[in-house]
Amino acid sequence: MTEKKHNDIIVNHDHKRGDYTGIPECILGEPKDNYQLTQAIQQALKSRESVLVTRIQGSQISAIQDLVSKHGLPLTFDKYERTAVIGRQIEKINRSTSCALISAGTSDDYLIEEIGFCLNYFDVGYVKYSDIGVAGIHRHKSALNDIHNNDPVRCIIIVAGQEGALFPVIAAQTKLPVIAVPSSVGYGFGGKGITALQSALQSCSPGVTVVNIDNGFGAAAFVKKLINLFD
Amino acid sequence: MTEKKHNDIIVNHDHKRGDYTGIPECILGEPKDNYQLTQAIQQALKSRESVLVTRIQGSQISAIQDLVSKHGLPLTFDKYERTAVIGRQIEKINRSTSCALISAGTSDDYLIEEIGFCLNYFDVGYVKYSDIGVAGIHRHKSALNDIHNNDPVRCIIIVAGQEGALFPVIAAQTKLPVIAVPSSVGYGFGGKGITALQSALQSCSPGVTVVNIDNGFGAAAFVKKLINLFD
Amino acid sequence: MTEKKHNDIIVNHDHKRGDYTGIPECILGEPKDNYQLTQAIQQALKSRESVLVTRIQGSQISAIQDLVSKHGLPLTFDKYERTAVIGRQIEKINRSTSCALISAGTSDDYLIEEIGFCLNYFDVGYVKYSDIGVAGIHRHKSALNDIHNNDPVRCIIIVAGQEGALFPVIAAQTKLPVIAVPSSVGYGFGGKGITALQSALQSCSPGVTVVNIDNGFGAAAFVKKLINLFD
Amino acid sequence: MTEKKHNDIIVNHDHKRGDYTGIPECILGEPKDNYQLTQAIQQALKSRESVLVTRIQGSQISAIQDLVSKHGLPLTFDKYERTAVIGRQIEKINRSTSCALISAGTSDDYLIEEIGFCLNYFDVGYVKYSDIGVAGIHRHKSALNDIHNNDPVRCIIIVAGQEGALFPVIAAQTKLPVIAVPSSVGYGFGGKGITALQSALQSCSPGVTVVNIDNGFGAAAFVKKLINLFD
Amino acid sequence: MTEKKHNDIIVNHDHKRGDYTGIPECILGEPKDNYQLTQAIQQALKSRESVLVTRIQGSQISAIQDLVSKHGLPLTFDKYERTAVIGRQIEKINRSTSCALISAGTSDDYLIEEIGFCLNYFDVGYVKYSDIGVAGIHRHKSALNDIHNNDPVRCIIIVAGQEGALFPVIAAQTKLPVIAVPSSVGYGFGGKGITALQSALQSCSPGVTVVNIDNGFGAAAFVKKLINLFD
Amino acid sequence: MTEKKHNDIIVNHDHKRGDYTGIPECILGEPKDNYQLTQAIQQALKSRESVLVTRIQGSQISAIQDLVSKHGLPLTFDKYERTAVIGRQIEKINRSTSCALISAGTSDDYLIEEIGFCLNYFDVGYVKYSDIGVAGIHRHKSALNDIHNNDPVRCIIIVAGQEGALFPVIAAQTKLPVIAVPSSVGYGFGGKGITALQSALQSCSPGVTVVNIDNGFGAAAFVKKLINLFD
Amino acid sequence: MTEKKHNDIIVNHDHKRGDYTGIPECILGEPKDNYQLTQAIQQALKSRESVLVTRIQGSQISAIQDLVSKHGLPLTFDKYERTAVIGRQIEKINRSTSCALISAGTSDDYLIEEIGFCLNYFDVGYVKYSDIGVAGIHRHKSALNDIHNNDPVRCIIIVAGQEGALFPVIAAQTKLPVIAVPSSVGYGFGGKGITALQSALQSCSPGVTVVNIDNGFGAAAFVKKLINLFD
Amino acid sequence: MTEKKHNDIIVNHDHKRGDYTGIPECILGEPKDNYQLTQAIQQALKSRESVLVTRIQGSQISAIQDLVSKHGLPLTFDKYERTAVIGRQIEKINRSTSCALISAGTSDDYLIEEIGFCLNYFDVGYVKYSDIGVAGIHRHKSALNDIHNNDPVRCIIIVAGQEGALFPVIAAQTKLPVIAVPSSVGYGFGGKGITALQSALQSCSPGVTVVNIDNGFGAAAFVKKLINLFD
Repeated sequence: MTEKKHNDIIVNHDHKRGDYTGIPECILGEPKDNYQLTQAIQQALKSRESVLVTRIQGSQISAIQDLVSKHGLPLTFDKYERTAVIGRQIEKINRSTSCALISAGTSDDYLIEEIGFCLNYFDVGYVKYSDIGVAGIHRHKSALNDIHNNDPVRCIIIVAGQEGALFPVIAAQTKLPVIAVPSSVGYGFGGKGITALQSALQSCSPGVTVVNIDNGFGAAAFVKKLINLFD
Repeated sequence: MTEKKHNDIIVNHDHKRGDYTGIPECILGEPKDNYQLTQAIQQALKSRESVLVTRIQGSQISAIQDLVSKHGLPLTFDKYERTAVIGRQIEKINRSTSCALISAGTSDDYLIEEIGFCLNYFDVGYVKYSDIGVAGIHRHKSALNDIHNNDPVRCIIIVAGQEGALFPVIAAQTKLPVIAVPSSVGYGFGGKGITALQSALQSCSPGVTVVNIDNGFGAAAFVKKLINLFD
Repeated sequence: MTEKKHNDIIVNHDHKRGDYTGIPECILGEPKDNYQLTQAIQQALKSRESVLVTRIQGSQISAIQDLVSKHGLPLTFDKYERTAVIGRQIEKINRSTSCALISAGTSDDYLIEEIGFCLNYFDVGYVKYSDIGVAGIHRHKSALNDIHNNDPVRCIIIVAGQEGALFPVIAAQTKLPVIAVPSSVGYGFGGKGITALQSALQSCSPGVTVVNIDNGFGAAAFVKKLINLFD
Repeated sequence: MTEKKHNDIIVNHDHKRGDYTGIPECILGEPKDNYQLTQAIQQALKSRESVLVTRIQGSQISAIQDLVSKHGLPLTFDKYERTAVIGRQIEKINRSTSCALISAGTSDDYLIEEIGFCLNYFDVGYVKYSDIGVAGIHRHKSALNDIHNNDPVRCIIIVAGQEGALFPVIAAQTKLPVIAVPSSVGYGFGGKGITALQSALQSCSPGVTVVNIDNGFGAAAFVKKLINLFD
Repeated sequence: MTEKKHNDIIVNHDHKRGDYTGIPECILGEPKDNYQLTQAIQQALKSRESVLVTRIQGSQISAIQDLVSKHGLPLTFDKYERTAVIGRQIEKINRSTSCALISAGTSDDYLIEEIGFCLNYFDVGYVKYSDIGVAGIHRHKSALNDIHNNDPVRCIIIVAGQEGALFPVIAAQTKLPVIAVPSSVGYGFGGKGITALQSALQSCSPGVTVVNIDNGFGAAAFVKKLINLFD
Repeated sequence: MTEKKHNDIIVNHDHKRGDYTGIPECILGEPKDNYQLTQAIQQALKSRESVLVTRIQGSQISAIQDLVSKHGLPLTFDKYERTAVIGRQIEKINRSTSCALISAGTSDDYLIEEIGFCLNYFDVGYVKYSDIGVAGIHRHKSALNDIHNNDPVRCIIIVAGQEGALFPVIAAQTKLPVIAVPSSVGYGFGGKGITALQSALQSCSPGVTVVNIDNGFGAAAFVKKLINLFD
Repeated sequence: MTEKKHNDIIVNHDHKRGDYTGIPECILGEPKDNYQLTQAIQQALKSRESVLVTRIQGSQISAIQDLVSKHGLPLTFDKYERTAVIGRQIEKINRSTSCALISAGTSDDYLIEEIGFCLNYFDVGYVKYSDIGVAGIHRHKSALNDIHNNDPVRCIIIVAGQEGALFPVIAAQTKLPVIAVPSSVGYGFGGKGITALQSALQSCSPGVTVVNIDNGFGAAAFVKKLINLFD
Repeated sequence: MTEKKHNDIIVNHDHKRGDYTGIPECILGEPKDNYQLTQAIQQALKSRESVLVTRIQGSQISAIQDLVSKHGLPLTFDKYERTAVIGRQIEKINRSTSCALISAGTSDDYLIEEIGFCLNYFDVGYVKYSDIGVAGIHRHKSALNDIHNNDPVRCIIIVAGQEGALFPVIAAQTKLPVIAVPSSVGYGFGGKGITALQSALQSCSPGVTVVNIDNGFGAAAFVKKLINLFD
């Protein structure tokens, strides 16, 4: 959708959401046009220091860059420039590893980065293990040892596309709760993440819950709520 | 499937699963014929005091009753006789309420009972709030107050069918992690739980994960893993 | 589809439709090529002062602008330039608010604008409440008070995407008839409006009817017929 | 589901719903076991004279009959014994015909009767025109004349299965709002009401809204809210 | 797919198909790259004077134009340049009207033109009635009179998208066999022709058969076989 | 649905349909209860000698037998007792073979018999070739020779389930129009006739049209209209 | 379907299929009525000593037993009485183990038995490893060692339902070709084998092909053709 | 996705996969961005001479060309530039024809070329028969004769889109195992390969297994494992 002149749009930002849920209102970039997006960011910053924007695409990147230039605001993008924080500089939290992130393949790493970025924004640390899917099944053994010997790890987020076999395979080897994040990797019948989603739902290993395909932000928010229990 | 003479079936019970995952192997009743089911129960009891059987149906109930009569074993069914523990008497754990169970309607309570029964089998306590769906939206306020003032409650399991609106509505009002369990209540297009499942996946309130339609056992297993983190 | 030379296309405009249904024939832009579209507009204007065109896209905007320049016709676009009236200047009708428009999020407002524009074309007034979805559930209380104290409001149109929980939540708190309009906001399984559509169909609060995903025009036409009952 | 001993079920009946929405809480029979159903009926009657039960099936009929015998309560079933009112004798309201009910075929009449029964329970009158589908397209002319000359008719409910062509065909010939109710009549691909539902959503004649397949109660509730506007 | 150097592609054109089926092998343009397409055309012309190409798109148009320029071959496109005959000049056959073509809306006319073009290539005449859908239901009366008084009309092809109500409505008013061609016009749930397809399959008026969505060529081929019966 | 007392049902039989379409109104048994069915039969016989009932099931058979006993009416069932004619004795028409019926397997013959029975009711003759599917591909050669040497055969109806390969295979070897009837034979993904339906729609051999899964009556009605062209 | 008198059914058994394909025509029981089934068996036995019948259900078992009693024919059922050979006594072939059969769970063993039974009928030996799914992932190690040290094993058939993770997990650890057979075990979204089918199609480990859900016979036939290559 | 600066991506290439499965890890191009892709190629080449990349698209072609230029590596693309080998020059292996490749139409040849290219990379020879689908059913006879007289041919891979009838038709005429590869050729309902996939799964000729739509690489990998049995 091209930029339109609709200057009377009023964004009804929910400034109290952080108080109610522990997670302040974040902004879903994708369906908004640039005017709506920048208005939403500015509304959010009226009551808070920073705001998280997810699923940024196309010219939204430069619209955000223009906005922060104009107002002299700090800006951090994740590695794939799909997620951003305006108003705060995000850096990797190394001191604490409350959550382990596992991906089945390199192609799934856009989600690993989104999740890690969101977790850091939520002040949650993580450790990641990339490209250890079941096609090379021996690869996840050392990761699991590492996780199980890492005391502050409270849960495992697994990102997988295609057939999503990594979800039940990991869940069968850990006492930690597992959150499955289906990626949209895979083509043909059952592609675009649908089989991975179903595999999480049908997992023969119990103790797996799932968020929607590509919903890295949602997984991070759930883990934020879970980790908060320990504060 | 009628009973057949297939005396050489060998059930390969996974006696070590409890050690690996914190949850011993449980038995899915539904797809098994009575011979397979009673064999599976007996195999499990070789290394353990008790075993949980889920999704029991039809003549499986009396097959289990015959088995326990013959061997003098304790037996407990849940309220709807869909779930059973053989080898141990299950009673409601009142002293600890680690988990809150909420249902949208009375029709969803078969799942509330399955989940509570499994949680008790896993030595996890719970408190339940039944029939407080959004059609009478004022009804969940007191439940939420109750939950938020109940310190050992670590998470909320919500059971809802039809449009599943209770998932995002509750998630918007709590800092606790929310696990959605879609029930198969609802008819017509999007019925049998499919809309409720999708509503959990599409929830505009973040911090919701989901298990499959009618998978009460899976939700209980996840919560067991979560509650174990506090031991 | 690029412009073709097919000069013998004969549009069979239904000049009597307004008499039969109270709503004159309007033109669906999207599937027409520019030649078909401008022919259809000109045919319509043979018996009427003005014509409404919906779901305009791509080069259709400038085809319409060229046509009105050439013939010196008035033209009004809605805020997102997806809907237009040729032959009449449309302005917001403030004196009468026969219908309340509610959106769940800012991303849904392209439909709020389409519906309001169509209602104004049909001489129906409206009042709008934007971005008051259930993720910040406290936000819709004042809107409902406002609506219920606004006597001429005869019905509520709700626009929501994702899980569409706003449909049953509002319907549970009003005596007014509710018309649900699913927006195509949302990604992954159940995205593009399909869950919102299903949530309206599965609504546990009765008294909700629904039009197709993104069919803002259809909702406006239904309300036009409803409001006509009061004339 | 066979009757179980679960005497501690607590139905959380929403006694205030009528005040909020104009429609008291009604009971969906189908997914409840007989114990839940009779408990729900008794709960409802604590604050009200009568209660409506929809989608009754199997042994629920005799469970209701047993209940009313035991407590000496009035009982009325609709013609197909799918809907009942306990606590009040329902009779056809002839003096007022606020709504016209049209069915495409005799096979669709189970819904016509459910809708009419619910409307009468809501004190709304109706006039019905049965079996006038488009396969004998000349049949609906006299019905439309009748409806258009019948002043208090405020809207038309159309019930159709199979291809649902009656929805756009009637909507093209009336200024009244049309509510489509897809019936589950039809077999093969697109059967069980799914094509009829889609035809209502895709209707080329604007001014049609739709409820779910077989949701006669939902259509009646919407019309109740609409007719209330005239009180 | 961009043009590749794969000079050893051997097209296995079926030169005998006309003898077996009455319809010579035609070429489906869409899935072929330009090299495959022009090879296929040249192969066909080895045993025949002319060849029909359907579903041409993008740069295929100029690839065909280059080919005919180079070899001095006659070329005719249909009105929307989606169908072409190479090797013969196609003109509208007026003397014979063996088939009536009806479209529901102007947006469906791309298929009317494809079908008419193919019929003419097969030496079958036709008469067309455009934009007479059920939203303006009075519009098809004169067309039906015209068709029924036109002796050589042996069958009716109806093109409709959206809800496809025109299929059963016309079939209910004629003794002629009806072939339904769903167009891909329509958006939202059931859009892109799927509801129109289903409506033809679910038609309450018997005597309707259907081809796939947008398969104008297939409908023309069936009619060619039907008209051949009269030779 | 059990028999109910609803004595005021008025069937609106379309006595003029035969005049408009060449095919009198027939009755779809399946969705009707026995009272509706026998009322519909009696209504039809008010203006005609006989009536065809399709998709009869369960206790409908004896309801029909009771009706004809009581009124002394002739009755003929097809071989599988799914189709019946009340009021006329149907016998196989051997003198004329206007249509060839082919089935892929013995399991498909319930449809062959329904179609042949309906054709005979419509005074159309047929010749049948059973169980000649592509798994034994050599089997259909002699059938095709037979058909092509049988002058009055005007079209071929093919019944096939599973993958429906017989549709394109036969269509590739005949100049006759082919009508595909998918049977509901086949299990697993794409079973119950859905793949056969799709194969007809996707047929690489042109000149195939299709009716819905198991719609033998619809195929017969289309052929009746086609054969009428030769009278 | 109840037994009907249709004595003129002619089964067109393909007596030459064994010569063409290496696999004689077998009979699919399920969709046939008892008369068709026993006719088909008798036709087959006209040219062969024995015939295989698959997917037997309900009263078909006794119809077969009656037939063999009457004609004094040998009969063997598989363990679940879903598959039978008439005319030959089938015994387990132990001398040769050309194929390894693996099941994920006890619930999948109805397919293991069908496949083994068919293989034995085809004179192919097998060795089976039951209930070694990924929920107890350590269980398949010894099976794989056993298979890899068993020289005549040429391929692995894996039967799994639910999420089907065993397909890619085994394929990642073997040089043998893997044929996946999805079982219909699993409930909720993606249940009844659909996720297992998709997991095989989406397998991240290459070298997996798949047959339809529950198509044990098809897998056995493929392996028969594969093993024939070594004769 | 545009190129990003994410220099710390670590590809976890499975260098041992060839030892375990007989097929070294290959790289799926499509979902990777150019940085991930070239990193993955370089990782693979650390332990091996060459690596296969499949489903290359867009700017990935030049990213690969840049990489090989920079490092002076051999590069071979298949005919449609969708598949590549880096590190080795692939040439057609003529001396050995272990596998026959058949396509239904010229449009399917992109898969024939991918499969042949992969087979050659795996040191497996093949012979191809292009464009011999059932619309010209006489065309495959000579191919089958050729294959059956060609001793080292161990199996047949068939590529077909649309209705996929070639799968059962060929399988009915050969003793060789058949692997079906559905192509994404075909439009409308059941298009993009879905009907072809289902036809393979529903094949009435037994002995057919299938890989996912467009998964030429998967078919080649399976055949590699099968051919290895003969070494």
